Amino acid sequence: MPCLNIEERLLNGDKRACARLITMLESNDREAIEILKRLYKNTGNAYVIGVTGPPGAGKSTLTDKLVKELRKRDKKIGIIAIDPTSPFSGGAILGDRIRMSDLSLDDNVFIRSMGTRGSLGGISKSTWGAVKVLDIFGCDYIFIETVGVGQSEVDIVKTADTVLMVMVPNLGDDIQAIKAGIMEIADVFAINKSDLDGADKTKLEIEMNLDLNDKMEFRPPVVKVSAAQNKDIDVLLEKILEHRKYLEETNKLEERRIRNNRTELLKMVEEDLMSLILDKAVKEDLINNLARDVALRKIDPYTAKDEILKLIVNSE
Amino acid sequence: MPCLNIEERLLNGDKRACARLITMLESNDREAIEILKRLYKNTGNAYVIGVTGPPGAGKSTLTDKLVKELRKRDKKIGIIAIDPTSPFSGGAILGDRIRMSDLSLDDNVFIRSMGTRGSLGGISKSTWGAVKVLDIFGCDYIFIETVGVGQSEVDIVKTADTVLMVMVPNLGDDIQAIKAGIMEIADVFAINKSDLDGADKTKLEIEMNLDLNDKMEFRPPVVKVSAAQNKDIDVLLEKILEHRKYLEETNKLEERRIRNNRTELLKMVEEDLMSLILDKAVKEDLINNLARDVALRKIDPYTAKDEILKLIVNSE
Repeated sequence: MPCLNIEERLLNGDKRACARLITMLESNDREAIEILKRLYKNTGNAYVIGVTGPPGAGKSTLTDKLVKELRKRDKKIGIIAIDPTSPFSGGAILGDRIRMSDLSLDDNVFIRSMGTRGSLGGISKSTWGAVKVLDIFGCDYIFIETVGVGQSEVDIVKTADTVLMVMVPNLGDDIQAIKAGIMEIADVFAINKSDLDGADKTKLEIEMNLDLNDKMEFRPPVVKVSAAQNKDIDVLLEKILEHRKYLEETNKLEERRIRNNRTELLKMVEEDLMSLILDKAVKEDLINNLARDVALRKIDPYTAKDEILKLIVNSE
Repeated sequence: MPCLNIEERLLNGDKRACARLITMLESNDREAIEILKRLYKNTGNAYVIGVTGPPGAGKSTLTDKLVKELRKRDKKIGIIAIDPTSPFSGGAILGDRIRMSDLSLDDNVFIRSMGTRGSLGGISKSTWGAVKVLDIFGCDYIFIETVGVGQSEVDIVKTADTVLMVMVPNLGDDIQAIKAGIMEIADVFAINKSDLDGADKTKLEIEMNLDLNDKMEFRPPVVKVSAAQNKDIDVLLEKILEHRKYLEETNKLEERRIRNNRTELLKMVEEDLMSLILDKAVKEDLINNLARDVALRKIDPYTAKDEILKLIVNSE
């Protein structure tokens, strides 16, 4: 058999080609983008599940258990753990994700950690690119798992087909604020570590919060599980699949994917524009000079900002 | 005396003119920007203190107490509470900030809550605009206080002259990850609620973390306080003023402000570019149509993204 190029190897389900292409995407490699442009028609098979929730909720363990459940059904799986590093992590969590999971030995499971610091083209663009690679690679399900609940992470998770929100009992009052706003994006709730006291109270609180919203077309189910004890993972998976079925039968999956594509396009545009600006401005040292002039009150920041904009924007 | 325009009233220290101008900035009003362009030369007097830390740390109470300490020294103060709403709060905290503070009755204290939902031109642009208005208004000190520790809030707080990080004892392990990365931006640490058990342990942890970084030119002091009991607020304020003195005497204040102006310029450019794109693209319904075509695999997302970019970017 002749030597295959990376494109052919990816189509053949070669795991290393998959890893290589994602690394190229992280380096903002033009060739990788060209490959995705050509192979984009091969996407659309994978179903994307976003997993988010507060730190310490056990998202990784729960994801691993859900994946094992799907493996029993012979599904091919991709897992992307995103950790937009700055300003909160030190990137230390990255990499651990892979080492910690025994799934990494399974040929039909692909796991990858992605962080801001490693993404030259922007974390969103890299993550969405990786989803496409895994889709072409032949994954049936792709999990996007966040390390924390930072805004950029949530923005990415929001673009999943189903968003799973992992909660734990006794988060304390301070987390209530987080719970309040983040609940809107959840399609399914899991209360992990449900052997702890307070699990029923947390379930009740979530249900009461859901009661307040009478405009929901699909009421998110709230499932008590224990990932560590492997308890009720199958029940949770069924609820996720029910949400999928609901989206498919009501034609809302397409609607949702259009909305997600919109988000993705705008975010990629934003990341590209900033790269463009920085490339041009750094070359001319324009930004540093203007920042100095603003500090010295030689120019006001609004006029300075317009000077920078002129670098790439058509004059009207 | 003839009727004065808003510009003159602001220069005269009229509190209502100040409020009005900030509201105009939030609506992305062109006239407000023109006023700031003209009056920018009048800025530079105010010293900006950023206050951040985890939810529940008591940032607002501590800020209020620091402000009262500065009022004893006859300083004029501005407080901006930022709450980038989406995706976590419901905006409910907004407004409360003002009602909760008895400082709002003081003519020499100006308090304002700002949220994403109320900021048509972007939260960063509005906040920085408000800082300039308060500077022109004659404030000696301006506090920028965050509700949470979201990335956009931290990005804004980072541009303060001094960043005060408010911690509390017993945050639990889950918060350690937050502590780890956020510590880099702190110039002064306050451990609030220090009457609680565990305050010494928290202080020790922070000191140990600081020990790890031997490249610091100014080692952030760690001060135990109790805002509720009004304990050691004066000590904390002195530490903040010592940081200011350090910056001024080493000429690092100017350096820092240049760096901050750079951040501000780039962020404003980003917010402006996205407004420009959205304005043009919404008019032509381009984004929605492209998002649909991407979902239907009629076009790949990278080509679609370039179509959108063409709306404003010069062809090269």
